[in-house]
Amino acid sequence: MALEPCHDHGVVGPMAGIVSPSMPVWIVANAAHGNRAYSNLNEGLGKVLRFGANSPDVLDRLRWMGTVLQPVLAAALDELGGLELKPLMAQALHMGDEIHNRNAAASSLLFRRLLPAALRSGAAREDIAACADFIAGNDHFFLNVSMAASKAMLDAATGVAGSSLVTAMARNGVEFGIRLTGCGDRWFTTAAPVVDGLYFAGYSVADAAPDLGDSCITEIAGLGGFAMAAAPAIVQFVGGTPDDALASTNEMTHITLGRNAAFTLPPLDFVGTPAGIDARRVVDTGITPVINTGIAHREPGIGQIGAGITRAPMACFTQAVAALATNVARTAAG
Amino acid sequence: MALEPCHDHGVVGPMAGIVSPSMPVWIVANAAHGNRAYSNLNEGLGKVLRFGANSPDVLDRLRWMGTVLQPVLAAALDELGGLELKPLMAQALHMGDEIHNRNAAASSLLFRRLLPAALRSGAAREDIAACADFIAGNDHFFLNVSMAASKAMLDAATGVAGSSLVTAMARNGVEFGIRLTGCGDRWFTTAAPVVDGLYFAGYSVADAAPDLGDSCITEIAGLGGFAMAAAPAIVQFVGGTPDDALASTNEMTHITLGRNAAFTLPPLDFVGTPAGIDARRVVDTGITPVINTGIAHREPGIGQIGAGITRAPMACFTQAVAALATNVARTAAG
Repeated sequence: MALEPCHDHGVVGPMAGIVSPSMPVWIVANAAHGNRAYSNLNEGLGKVLRFGANSPDVLDRLRWMGTVLQPVLAAALDELGGLELKPLMAQALHMGDEIHNRNAAASSLLFRRLLPAALRSGAAREDIAACADFIAGNDHFFLNVSMAASKAMLDAATGVAGSSLVTAMARNGVEFGIRLTGCGDRWFTTAAPVVDGLYFAGYSVADAAPDLGDSCITEIAGLGGFAMAAAPAIVQFVGGTPDDALASTNEMTHITLGRNAAFTLPPLDFVGTPAGIDARRVVDTGITPVINTGIAHREPGIGQIGAGITRAPMACFTQAVAALATNVARTAAG
Repeated sequence: MALEPCHDHGVVGPMAGIVSPSMPVWIVANAAHGNRAYSNLNEGLGKVLRFGANSPDVLDRLRWMGTVLQPVLAAALDELGGLELKPLMAQALHMGDEIHNRNAAASSLLFRRLLPAALRSGAAREDIAACADFIAGNDHFFLNVSMAASKAMLDAATGVAGSSLVTAMARNGVEFGIRLTGCGDRWFTTAAPVVDGLYFAGYSVADAAPDLGDSCITEIAGLGGFAMAAAPAIVQFVGGTPDDALASTNEMTHITLGRNAAFTLPPLDFVGTPAGIDARRVVDTGITPVINTGIAHREPGIGQIGAGITRAPMACFTQAVAALATNVARTAAG
């Protein structure tokens, strides 16, 4: 699984007229399965487009990311000939990240790989300097890479008839949805939950939008809440105690089909992260997937106001398992 | 406690004719107490001068460090106006380092601070690129900064009459020595122990020199073996299990005078690292300080052949406490 030089931009329709003709994206290639996944680039914390902020400073930053950051990153990745992500992510798990809401190590390791390559490339020095300041100032810079990497892993598991493996979870601030590999592209949705978390100064749960975003794709890949044992320090960002962090990872072993041998957890004697959520086990045990997540303000224009821990709603899983049973029965009836 | 621009070089006498007229050093200033400490720059693992290797490639690297690395680092630190070390070290402890034999996070964080500054400085691009490759390729780059920072903290504690606080531990491959604040500059020495550790491929304990080096100054400052709870992944480098790592930190609380509130340990609910070794408590409890250490080959020219865990020998502490008792009795007798 490797990050590829980002030459082809993903054109994000609604943004076309506002920000720039195109928005740069990470491209993550799953070489073993031949599929690719994409994500835009992380803007940082606070007032950012992905949390609903759209003030001039937010739009200026997006324009800069398209015109300065993208060419430098593309030149660095060209110089590297792509960048293997699994070893980097495995190392970050040994450095206190869960690679969803804590990316301090992964972002540092990515910076350590990209900067020397950028300096060897033809990119202009002042552009590299500006990118160095931007990336070095953002502990969450790796998050979007982690999302695309998780998506690249999980997309390889789509289309397995009869299987109750969860291949996607996502939320949009109104609904929470999941997909099963045995149910194709169908989403099973219910109302998105509110997040109990730690709020930035001046904000509280009363200001919060319900759970929102695509980043919980990392949890299905065995990261985030599933890998919290690796990241005791994250409780200062999402709440709870280091013991809760260990307990989260251990609890998730009851609803997963296995462990990811490439992603090991030092505090648990180097066992792999629990990975591969089985919707039937969720329904059988009553244990729902734990998610570390950022919290957006309920009004547009403000952005992220906190972070916390939430759960995927059970209703998605009961619907999905019922639908899968119908599929299987229909197939058997032939 | 801050890293200062390294304009004044420490001239290391015996090296003068061999390597270069001077060898660059880190300068760590303890602003609160007005003292400074120094360390040379880390050369990496394997064949390096500090582990007894002196082949042409080792000497070439040292010359490069004096002529290319030093000016770039000096320019970057000038640009930064110095660099506060305590927050960086505290963050590294939250990222799986114990900041003695595991410096992957601290080295990454230092790189993240230095590189953007170097790019803003007048340093030549090709020199910055070479330094970026060198630093990014060395997970132990921060070690020597950690040593000087520990020394700067402990030197501020010298000269307290009647106190059994340990202010230094060091070994030279033959003897192991300690100093007490209440006994001035006197060293209390005994034979250096052999280190039970993990050896690099092709080497074993039969090849090992007895314990060697100044880096256990970090243990007295509450890092290294005393902070192993922060660094479960280090057991892959020095041996043992993650439970042993927690136990090491907990055991050291019985021989220390307090905890360093600036250096907290997420896996132990964010308590501070045990710090301030009391020689009397070592003698009273029979618990000797645990040290994470590199292992040198017993023959010159080969360098580091492994890493492991060892203990400071009890004989140093019994001698030191007896001498302190004599000092105190003499003072009381007037």
